[in-house]
Amino acid sequence: MTHPKTGKIRYKGITIGRLPIGKNNCITDVEGVKVGHVTLDHPLADGEHACTGVTAILPHDGNLFANKVVAASHVLNGFGKTTGLVQVNELGVIESPIMLTNTFAVPAVMQGTLQYMLEDNPAIGVSTGTINLVVGECNDSRLNSIRSLPIQPEHAKTCLNEASMETSAEGAVGAGKGMICFGYKGGIGSSSRIIIDEKNDPAYTIGCMVLSNFGKKEDFQVDRYRVKHTDTPAYPTEADGSIMIVLATDAPLSSRQLKRLAKRCGIGLGRTGSHFSHGSGDIVIAFSTAHKIPHDTTESVESRSQLREDHVIMDTLFLASVEVVEEAILNSLSQAETTKGRNDNTAYAYPF
Amino acid sequence: MTHPKTGKIRYKGITIGRLPIGKNNCITDVEGVKVGHVTLDHPLADGEHACTGVTAILPHDGNLFANKVVAASHVLNGFGKTTGLVQVNELGVIESPIMLTNTFAVPAVMQGTLQYMLEDNPAIGVSTGTINLVVGECNDSRLNSIRSLPIQPEHAKTCLNEASMETSAEGAVGAGKGMICFGYKGGIGSSSRIIIDEKNDPAYTIGCMVLSNFGKKEDFQVDRYRVKHTDTPAYPTEADGSIMIVLATDAPLSSRQLKRLAKRCGIGLGRTGSHFSHGSGDIVIAFSTAHKIPHDTTESVESRSQLREDHVIMDTLFLASVEVVEEAILNSLSQAETTKGRNDNTAYAYPF
Amino acid sequence: MTHPKTGKIRYKGITIGRLPIGKNNCITDVEGVKVGHVTLDHPLADGEHACTGVTAILPHDGNLFANKVVAASHVLNGFGKTTGLVQVNELGVIESPIMLTNTFAVPAVMQGTLQYMLEDNPAIGVSTGTINLVVGECNDSRLNSIRSLPIQPEHAKTCLNEASMETSAEGAVGAGKGMICFGYKGGIGSSSRIIIDEKNDPAYTIGCMVLSNFGKKEDFQVDRYRVKHTDTPAYPTEADGSIMIVLATDAPLSSRQLKRLAKRCGIGLGRTGSHFSHGSGDIVIAFSTAHKIPHDTTESVESRSQLREDHVIMDTLFLASVEVVEEAILNSLSQAETTKGRNDNTAYAYPF
Amino acid sequence: MTHPKTGKIRYKGITIGRLPIGKNNCITDVEGVKVGHVTLDHPLADGEHACTGVTAILPHDGNLFANKVVAASHVLNGFGKTTGLVQVNELGVIESPIMLTNTFAVPAVMQGTLQYMLEDNPAIGVSTGTINLVVGECNDSRLNSIRSLPIQPEHAKTCLNEASMETSAEGAVGAGKGMICFGYKGGIGSSSRIIIDEKNDPAYTIGCMVLSNFGKKEDFQVDRYRVKHTDTPAYPTEADGSIMIVLATDAPLSSRQLKRLAKRCGIGLGRTGSHFSHGSGDIVIAFSTAHKIPHDTTESVESRSQLREDHVIMDTLFLASVEVVEEAILNSLSQAETTKGRNDNTAYAYPF
Repeated sequence: MTHPKTGKIRYKGITIGRLPIGKNNCITDVEGVKVGHVTLDHPLADGEHACTGVTAILPHDGNLFANKVVAASHVLNGFGKTTGLVQVNELGVIESPIMLTNTFAVPAVMQGTLQYMLEDNPAIGVSTGTINLVVGECNDSRLNSIRSLPIQPEHAKTCLNEASMETSAEGAVGAGKGMICFGYKGGIGSSSRIIIDEKNDPAYTIGCMVLSNFGKKEDFQVDRYRVKHTDTPAYPTEADGSIMIVLATDAPLSSRQLKRLAKRCGIGLGRTGSHFSHGSGDIVIAFSTAHKIPHDTTESVESRSQLREDHVIMDTLFLASVEVVEEAILNSLSQAETTKGRNDNTAYAYPF
Repeated sequence: MTHPKTGKIRYKGITIGRLPIGKNNCITDVEGVKVGHVTLDHPLADGEHACTGVTAILPHDGNLFANKVVAASHVLNGFGKTTGLVQVNELGVIESPIMLTNTFAVPAVMQGTLQYMLEDNPAIGVSTGTINLVVGECNDSRLNSIRSLPIQPEHAKTCLNEASMETSAEGAVGAGKGMICFGYKGGIGSSSRIIIDEKNDPAYTIGCMVLSNFGKKEDFQVDRYRVKHTDTPAYPTEADGSIMIVLATDAPLSSRQLKRLAKRCGIGLGRTGSHFSHGSGDIVIAFSTAHKIPHDTTESVESRSQLREDHVIMDTLFLASVEVVEEAILNSLSQAETTKGRNDNTAYAYPF
Repeated sequence: MTHPKTGKIRYKGITIGRLPIGKNNCITDVEGVKVGHVTLDHPLADGEHACTGVTAILPHDGNLFANKVVAASHVLNGFGKTTGLVQVNELGVIESPIMLTNTFAVPAVMQGTLQYMLEDNPAIGVSTGTINLVVGECNDSRLNSIRSLPIQPEHAKTCLNEASMETSAEGAVGAGKGMICFGYKGGIGSSSRIIIDEKNDPAYTIGCMVLSNFGKKEDFQVDRYRVKHTDTPAYPTEADGSIMIVLATDAPLSSRQLKRLAKRCGIGLGRTGSHFSHGSGDIVIAFSTAHKIPHDTTESVESRSQLREDHVIMDTLFLASVEVVEEAILNSLSQAETTKGRNDNTAYAYPF
Repeated sequence: MTHPKTGKIRYKGITIGRLPIGKNNCITDVEGVKVGHVTLDHPLADGEHACTGVTAILPHDGNLFANKVVAASHVLNGFGKTTGLVQVNELGVIESPIMLTNTFAVPAVMQGTLQYMLEDNPAIGVSTGTINLVVGECNDSRLNSIRSLPIQPEHAKTCLNEASMETSAEGAVGAGKGMICFGYKGGIGSSSRIIIDEKNDPAYTIGCMVLSNFGKKEDFQVDRYRVKHTDTPAYPTEADGSIMIVLATDAPLSSRQLKRLAKRCGIGLGRTGSHFSHGSGDIVIAFSTAHKIPHDTTESVESRSQLREDHVIMDTLFLASVEVVEEAILNSLSQAETTKGRNDNTAYAYPF
C-alpha cells in the first residue's frame, strides 16, 4: 500500500485532461462515498501463496438497502463475471456496496456481503423482498493462487466494516493486490474532477476507482505518448486481463444519463492503450449520490431533479468521465509497488 | 417429488399448443441434457425450517468447460440476481452447468459449482483462464427460512454428481421445493416438443425446464381460460415472485437465433396469466447442443451449421418456444404437492 | 372506416381483462393525444391499385419539437423498418409525431413530416439542431400495389393537419387500409384503460393504438379461446406481417419505466395468438404526456415526478399494457370491413 | 475532391498504429467493396447554397438483396437518425447499400435507393417480402442550406450507378462535402489494415470509411499529441456534430463478432479527441464479405465458417478496428480542402 497522494501520476509530471481535480483526486471526493480494502499476502499450504484481496465501495454512509442510489452499468467487453447487473439495468438503482475481488472469490465475497446486509436489515427475506448484490472481479492468477480460494466471507465483512470516507489507498492494495496492468504492477487507482458552473463555481464532483488488470506492454500509452524505453521487465503475458471501473458523482442524473457517462469510460480506457481485448472483462458501474431512494415509503410518486442533457455541464461530465478513467488507470500503476506472488512470480512497478 | 409423467397437465385433459411432444415431454428429451435435484426439507435452529433446494441442468454429459455449447439469455423482467449472463451475452456460449436455487443460496451454489468445475479442470486458473458460472434463483422465503442460509456448497456438488439423463422429477423438488406460483404450489416443471421436417420426419427436439414462483391467483389462466372456481385456498401473496426458464434444443442455432427463441418464451409465460410483475425476475437461458465448441484447439476458423431463419422450421421453433414454456409452467403446478414450510406456511396443490 | 364505438369487440360480448376502460376506449382518451388518417383507395396505372394510407399519432396538441415528451421503444421482433428509434433510445424523448404507413411509403411520409415540422420550426437546421422523425410501417402488399409508391409527402401533411383529439376511426382506415391480421381484415385498432388509485379515484389513463398486419388463421385466439369455426375464407398467407404498437399514458414515467411497459405489450400480442413470427416487425413505441420537456430553456436542472415502481399503480400499469394491446388488436379486426385491393385480392372481415 | 493517396495523413509523417496497411489504405481494399459519391456545390434560390452530397458503400459487386452480407451495428451515441438498424440488429445481415448523406436528405436518399433496388429486384413487394434500407447521416447545416432539401432521389441513384471498386476519393466529397471536424474541414476518410497469420502471410483485410462531422478544436488530438499551434481559424462551433463509421472486412465473422469489432471503433474515435458529445450521432455499421447469404434457397440449414474468438487473429482484428477508425478520421481531415458554403461560411483545411 502506497502513500495515497504523492505517488499519483500527476506528481510525476503527467497531467491528464484539462478539467480541475477534486480535493484529493480520489473517488472519495464525492461526498459520502466510502472505500475499504482487505489485503491478503501470505503463504498457503502446498507452496501456494495468497496475493489477493477485497475492495468495497459504498455509495454513502447510511444503510444502502434502506436508501438506494440511482445507478447504471455498461459492459465494454463482457468476458467478466460481475454479479448484480441484471437488476441494476432493470431498476436503475444500486442497493448494496460495490465489491471488487478476484474471479474465484466472487462467491465468498457475495456470501460475506449478503451476511453483512442481512444483519443490518432484519426485514429482508421476511417482511420485504431480497437484496441485489454487486460483486466485480478480475483474474489475479498470475500472482495469486486463485484456485486455493483464500478469500473467505469474513474478509468481505471486515472490508465493509473498515471502509471510510478518507482518501483511499491505491496500487497493490485490496482487490488490486495481485493485479497486473500492461505487464507492470497495477491494481487500485482513483481520480476525480470538479465540474464548474457558469459562474465559475464548483457545481459537481465526479470520481472514479478502477481495478486494473489488463493490457500488454507494447500497447501501453501514457498521456497518449508511446511509453518510454525501460529496462524494467514486463510480465510476459499471453493471458488477457480485465478492468472494473466504478464511477461516482453527486450530479443529479437518471440511470439513462449515468449509462451515457459509463459508455464514455471506454474512451479513457482506450487512451491508455487498451483495445478491449477478447478475454478482458471491461465493465463500468456508475452511480449518483444526488438522490437517496427510500426502500420504504407510502408515496406513489417521487420527484427527482436531473441535469438537462443539452446543457454544457452534461457535456463536461462526459469529458470528465473520459479523464477520470484514464487518470485512475495511470494512478493504479504509479501507486503500485513491485509485488512478488505465487511461484515467486513478480510484477514490477512501472518506472515512471 | 411426484411421478414424472402421470401428473402432467396433459394427463388432466389440458393440451397446450398443437405441436407433438417429445418422448417424455421433458427437457431431457433433448439428447444428452442432464438434470439433478437436491431437496432440503428439515427443521433448523430457532424454529426455522429449510424448505428449499438446488437444481442443476447440464447441457451435455461431458466436460462442460472443455466443450462449450452455444447459448443466449434474455431478461423479460430484471428483478433477479442470475449470475453469469454478462459473459453468456458477450461470447454466446455456456461453459458450466446451469444451476437453480433460492436467492440467498446463490453464493453457496456458485461456490460448490466452482469447486466441482475446478476439480474436473486442473488447467483453470493456472494455464488457462477462469470459468463463467450461471446460477439462477427465485425467492422462496414464504416457505423457506431463506435468511438461515441452509444451502451449502456441498449441496451443489451432490446435485451435479447425481444429475442424470433420466426424465426429471417435477413440482416441489430441488430448487422448486419452496416455490409458489399463482398462489398455489409451483416449482420445477418441464415439457418438450418435436419439430417435424418437410418429409414429416422428426428433425429437432426442443425442451424447457422452469422454476416457477410468480403470479397471483386472480391472474392465473389455464389453457387461456380463466381458472375454474376452487375452494382450495391460494397463498395470500403481496410479494412478487420470479421465474427461471431454461430452453434446450438440438437444432443448430447461433446465439443470436437462440436469443430470438428466448424472447418468445415471454409469450408462453404471458399466456399462463403473467404480466411480468415489477418484482419478478423473469429470465430465460437458452442453449443448443448441436455444436460442442472445444476450449482447446489450434484452429483459427471453425465451421458451424445454422438454420435458415426464413425456413418454416425456424418459425416452428418460435412457436415451440411459446408452447413449451406455457406447458412447463402448468406442469410445475400440476406435478407439485401441497407443501408446508416455515411457520407452518402452506402452499396447496392446485386442484386440476 | 367504421363507426368508432359500436364495432368494438366489447360490444360483441368479448371483454378483455379486468381493468375499467376509458371514456371512448381509445388512445385519444389520454388527454391531448391527437390522431389523423389519410386513406387511399383508387386505381393506379397499369392495373395497379392503391389500397393504403397514413396514420399520424401526435402526443399533444402543441409544437412537438418545442415541447417533447418522454418516450421509449421496444423491439419485440426486429423484421421492421421503423425510423427514429436510435435517438428515442438514447435520449428518452419523442419530438415529432409518430407516423404509420406502408413499408415503401416510409421515405415519402418522412419527407412530408419533415416539411411539416420545418414549417412550424424555422430555427431547425439554422440556429438549432435537426429533428428526429419516427415513422413505423407494415407491409400491405397483399392488397396494395406497394411497388407503385402511391403515397406522397403531401399525404403525410394532410394527415397531420387533419389530426384531432376526437375518438379515432378504426379498422380499414389510414395506414390500416391494406393490412391483414390472422388472415382477416385488420388495420387500425385502439383501446384504453383507467388506473384507479387507493381512494378508488381515476389516477391515470393509458391508451393504445395498433396497426395490425400479422398472423395466420390457425394461430388466432379470441379472449384466449381458439376461434370459432367460420366459413368466411381467410387470406391464404405465407408471408409474415408485422404490428406497430403505440402506447400513450398520462402517468409520470421515466423512459426506463416506459420501456418496461413497452415490454409487456408483447404479452397482449401473444395472447391474440402471435408468436412473433420471423418476418414480423413487432415494434412498440411508448410515451408519457405527463411532462413536456422544452427544447429551449436556460435551466441546467429540471425536476420530473415519476411513479414509484414498487407501488401497486405501477403494476397495474403493467397489467393495463397487456390488456390494451390485446383489445386494440381485436378492435382492429372487429372494426374492419371486408376490403378488396389490387388484383381483386380480398380480405374479409372476421365474423365476430 | 482530393488526390486519393498523397493527401493521406501517413504521407504527412503521421503513422497510426502498428499494423500494416492495405494496398491503397482504403475501404475498397476489402475485395468487392464499392464506393460512389455525388457532390453538390451550387447556389440555390433565395441566396441559399447546396454544399452537400451522397456517398454509397456497397458490400459487393452483385445484387445486394439477392446475396446479403453478415452485418452488425453499434451505437456509440444515439443522437442520430440512421435508418435500418432495427432489422440489421435482429437478423445480422445487410441487404442494401449503405448510404450516407445529410440529415434532412435521409428521406430523399432512402427513396432513391428504394427505387434503385426495386428496379433490380422485381420480386420485392410482389412475390417476396420488402427490403431494409440503411441510410446514415450527419448534419452539414453549417456549410449547407440543409432546410432547402437540395438532394433528390436521383442523386442517390446516380451515386449507386457510379460506384466503383477503385480507391475512393476522400475529404470534401460526396456526403462529406459540407462536414466539419474539430472545427476544420472534415468529411469522407478511409483507411485499411492487413491481418497477418502465423506464417506471416496476409490472412484478412479490414477497411473503414468515415463521415466525420464532430468535435471542437480544443479537443483535437493527432496521434495522441495535442495538436500544434496554428493560426488557421477553426469554425467557431457550439453545435455538436456526428460521425458515421462503416467497417468492412473479408474475415469470416458472425454478426455477434462484428458487433464486438464495432464497439472497438469507439476507441479509435476517442483517440482523435472525441468524448462522444451529447449531440453527436456516433454510429458504427460493420459487415463481412466472407459469406454471401442467398435470399432464395431451399436449404433449411446453411454452413458458415467463423473465426475462433480466442485466436490471436481475432484480437488483432480488434486492434485493427481501433487503428482504422483513428486513421480514417485523420485522413478525412488531411484530404479535405478549404470549403466555402452557405452565407460564405468557410471551413478551413487543417494545416498538417
